[in-house]
Amino acid sequence: MLIDFVGLGSMGLGMATSLVRAGHAVRGHDPDASRVEMFIAAGGIAASESTTPADALVSAVLNADQTRSVLSNTQSVAARLRKGGVIVSCATVSPDFAKEMEVAAANAGHLYLDAPISGGAIKAAAGQLSIMASGTAEAFDLAAPILDAMAETVHRLGDGAGEGSAMKAVNQLLAGVHIAAMGEAMAFGASQGLTPEQVLNVVSVSAGTSWMFENRGAHVVEADYSPRSKVDIWLKDLGIVTEIAATSGLPVPVSTNALAQFRAASAAGLGNEDDAAIAKYFARAGGITLPGDV
Amino acid sequence: MLIDFVGLGSMGLGMATSLVRAGHAVRGHDPDASRVEMFIAAGGIAASESTTPADALVSAVLNADQTRSVLSNTQSVAARLRKGGVIVSCATVSPDFAKEMEVAAANAGHLYLDAPISGGAIKAAAGQLSIMASGTAEAFDLAAPILDAMAETVHRLGDGAGEGSAMKAVNQLLAGVHIAAMGEAMAFGASQGLTPEQVLNVVSVSAGTSWMFENRGAHVVEADYSPRSKVDIWLKDLGIVTEIAATSGLPVPVSTNALAQFRAASAAGLGNEDDAAIAKYFARAGGITLPGDV
Repeated sequence: MLIDFVGLGSMGLGMATSLVRAGHAVRGHDPDASRVEMFIAAGGIAASESTTPADALVSAVLNADQTRSVLSNTQSVAARLRKGGVIVSCATVSPDFAKEMEVAAANAGHLYLDAPISGGAIKAAAGQLSIMASGTAEAFDLAAPILDAMAETVHRLGDGAGEGSAMKAVNQLLAGVHIAAMGEAMAFGASQGLTPEQVLNVVSVSAGTSWMFENRGAHVVEADYSPRSKVDIWLKDLGIVTEIAATSGLPVPVSTNALAQFRAASAAGLGNEDDAAIAKYFARAGGITLPGDV
Repeated sequence: MLIDFVGLGSMGLGMATSLVRAGHAVRGHDPDASRVEMFIAAGGIAASESTTPADALVSAVLNADQTRSVLSNTQSVAARLRKGGVIVSCATVSPDFAKEMEVAAANAGHLYLDAPISGGAIKAAAGQLSIMASGTAEAFDLAAPILDAMAETVHRLGDGAGEGSAMKAVNQLLAGVHIAAMGEAMAFGASQGLTPEQVLNVVSVSAGTSWMFENRGAHVVEADYSPRSKVDIWLKDLGIVTEIAATSGLPVPVSTNALAQFRAASAAGLGNEDDAAIAKYFARAGGITLPGDV
């Protein structure tokens, strides 16, 4: 297949390279020319190299605004998608936004797959992402070779846009709250004389564990807050959760509270650090210094 | 060893029976005579049957008040412990309370092991608990055959009382927050048209998962709120967390918020249901009915 791929960030570059590895012709698009160069070095095609209409457009941009810009601008890459081609949209957005994009795609003669991703940069590069997808049978059929190349697991959640994004939001709700809880637990343990290493070792094999506790807790133990995923990402993702919930009239006090903690950590200057730095925010609030915090 | 065992509840009966199975002589104590009868049927000894001083006292009561009553009353079972005998205290209590009990034990000529447990009734019956323990080398040495019989894993966390209870509190902080997050996530998913089964299946293999999400989420999927662990337990356990934190001057907004949710669920009449019923509380607040909620 000929695929236009938009968004060659830490996730996108790996995903696009997985598509190349699977034998697809992939044109790479990113505002950062150095990312495009990296992709071409990995076997990708420069966007300027051909104007042949693409069979598919994969959008791995950051958020709803960028997604709208990619998909709705008639001057954009979407204008190069052939009639009947499929858009695979991977950003974390609200279900309502995904439905809006599906309608816009249909109006332009395109299929649409609501396909948020989960798994991180390493799995993206290995073609082993988890994809929470919903869309029509036609969209799934046309996107099948793309999903096969990028994902280890495809959760097929509904026959139109919305459910994919809804499930991603559920996952982010839990992931965000769990990171906040990890941070509070590490600070609490330290306040009682327990080292982060002791807490990680014991909790990891106890009922208090979570995927995020083990993953981000290791960053606290190593005192390594170089950003793999930033504190500020949660202002966006938990913001989406609380906005969706408000639209649905559902109180989400646990998420709302976790969002408030990430906001406060960001305001305290930790926004561009790894999200595990929420532990430092909690510790500082109690006058405690975690290892590596100076 | 001759052991006095106090507290033959759903955890205690299994723990005491594990001690019998390991060849110890175990005298059972519980205010509920039917629990004592169950234990005698399983090979235990009636407390009235002998007055020989015990080598050890295992206390598997519910909380600090009951622990104090067992250990501090000179008319109580603690008076039957031989000089130099060891007290193994398993209730979830504050580190300061555990230290106070260790001092009281020393004054009475006894060793003390701060030994909160984790794992549930099934692992208790199988002798496969996880124990978060701290105490002197002498207390660990004397208690070793008891720990061997009751636990699969013993985390040795410090050389005096306190660290064991501190680690248990860290674990309960995370476990309680994770159950609240599970409930909110199930309600949120339902508000977006996702069934509890879909949410459980996808999140369990995604970064949003936790031990509690998988365990308690299954109760929501099965719409089975018969109490294996009650909503009201979290008023106690998260109450301990927030009290310890307040004493240490550490803000714990995430735990404080989760505690508020369990309090509200209890006030709404769900206190004696399984703690997974927090999902019903969140759903009802949004006008949503989860499966099995009438």
